[in-house]
Amino acid sequence: MISSIQTRRTIRRYTARDVEPALLERLLNDSARTQTMGNLQLYSVIVTRSPEGKAALAPAHFNQPMVTQAPVVLTICADFHRTSAWARCRNAEPGYDNLLSFMNAATDALLFTQTFSTLAEDAGLGLCFLGTTIYSAQTVIDVLHLPQLVFPVATLTVGWPAEEPPLSDRLPLESFVHDETYHAPTPEDINRFYTPKEALPENQEFVRINQKETLAQIFTDIRYTKKDNEMMSEGLIEALSKQGFLKGK
Amino acid sequence: MISSIQTRRTIRRYTARDVEPALLERLLNDSARTQTMGNLQLYSVIVTRSPEGKAALAPAHFNQPMVTQAPVVLTICADFHRTSAWARCRNAEPGYDNLLSFMNAATDALLFTQTFSTLAEDAGLGLCFLGTTIYSAQTVIDVLHLPQLVFPVATLTVGWPAEEPPLSDRLPLESFVHDETYHAPTPEDINRFYTPKEALPENQEFVRINQKETLAQIFTDIRYTKKDNEMMSEGLIEALSKQGFLKGK
Repeated sequence: MISSIQTRRTIRRYTARDVEPALLERLLNDSARTQTMGNLQLYSVIVTRSPEGKAALAPAHFNQPMVTQAPVVLTICADFHRTSAWARCRNAEPGYDNLLSFMNAATDALLFTQTFSTLAEDAGLGLCFLGTTIYSAQTVIDVLHLPQLVFPVATLTVGWPAEEPPLSDRLPLESFVHDETYHAPTPEDINRFYTPKEALPENQEFVRINQKETLAQIFTDIRYTKKDNEMMSEGLIEALSKQGFLKGK
Repeated sequence: MISSIQTRRTIRRYTARDVEPALLERLLNDSARTQTMGNLQLYSVIVTRSPEGKAALAPAHFNQPMVTQAPVVLTICADFHRTSAWARCRNAEPGYDNLLSFMNAATDALLFTQTFSTLAEDAGLGLCFLGTTIYSAQTVIDVLHLPQLVFPVATLTVGWPAEEPPLSDRLPLESFVHDETYHAPTPEDINRFYTPKEALPENQEFVRINQKETLAQIFTDIRYTKKDNEMMSEGLIEALSKQGFLKGK
């Protein structure tokens, strides 16, 4: 039984200790056992260790300090470039410049990312997953020189923990597990699922200092607004198109 | 150190033994510790145990026998429905009917899926990941009654293994790990990365019985063709639109 999952927390501060290359290689190699479409391994990992490389990536991640402070930054990409290059070298005509193929490769890349996360955290490393990767995909693409049919879908900052934040709360199982068919939540369900989260002192404090009425407004009005989402959706579609994933339709 | 990952294989045949509800609940609960955007848990899991439910899902998965034979089928969905319902109950206006939000929720759902896979396989269960989910998304949506802003991204068939297939091969680390920037593979790189895979007796046999010249042609001409990919891309876009994820732009 893997118990490290029960006590994992996102780690944003790291000690000065390096992540030894042999350890990183072992974790990446083991992660490659993850299930993958047609056994094609439709992903790549860019390892950034240099201060210059981290500094170049930082703006894409809204200059969050983890990017420059972590010993290692991993950018995990959906990759149909390598498979397509293989096909062309073998008298085969690849047809992977479409949205379905992007989703297939993104799926492979994200499954790989999470196996790595579980293994790395079990080995005592601390990680922070940066969702900003797809918000600023074009910047990441430029900095890492990603060719056609390679698209960044996840970033992990990796190091040895220099903090031990409290465990974050989770919704009850019944809120996200459905028997046989989806049961849309009623207002009573919503109260039952979300009231414990809303009652946490840190969340009440967030609402107070941001002068909002409800915790949900923190998300809709500040953290993940419609305006930002729509702007970043446009950037995402543009970047997918530039990388060649919206051609074949 | 988690060693079960090194010997995992996809399992398509299961014994008659049930997957005990308490075990499944523990695994789902533990998987919910996975990192998630803004701690929102943008996913749902539909648990199918009934023979009728499995039979209804089977066509979406090209009638692969695992779907009806496994004691449990899990369909994992990107879900902004629940979060949006919460917002509406709390005087907050959600803005998640766009592609970026779909990708955020799909990311959450896939990370959750892979934590579950690692934990379940470590507990001795056997899994098969069905990539067909996004090929036939509309069928899955209809069968499981998925509402607006819920979209299926992964299916796992789950049971106790009744087979022990050989470990599948993997590409060498250097083929998918890049230092600092992406290094596009040269034809010599491609030879080094792919020749061991091409030399495997089972792959040579595939090429022979399909009367192809190269293993790559098995993928481009038979398993994942340009024509099929483009047709399924259209279906994917249509289904995303119907579920409300392409509105806000």
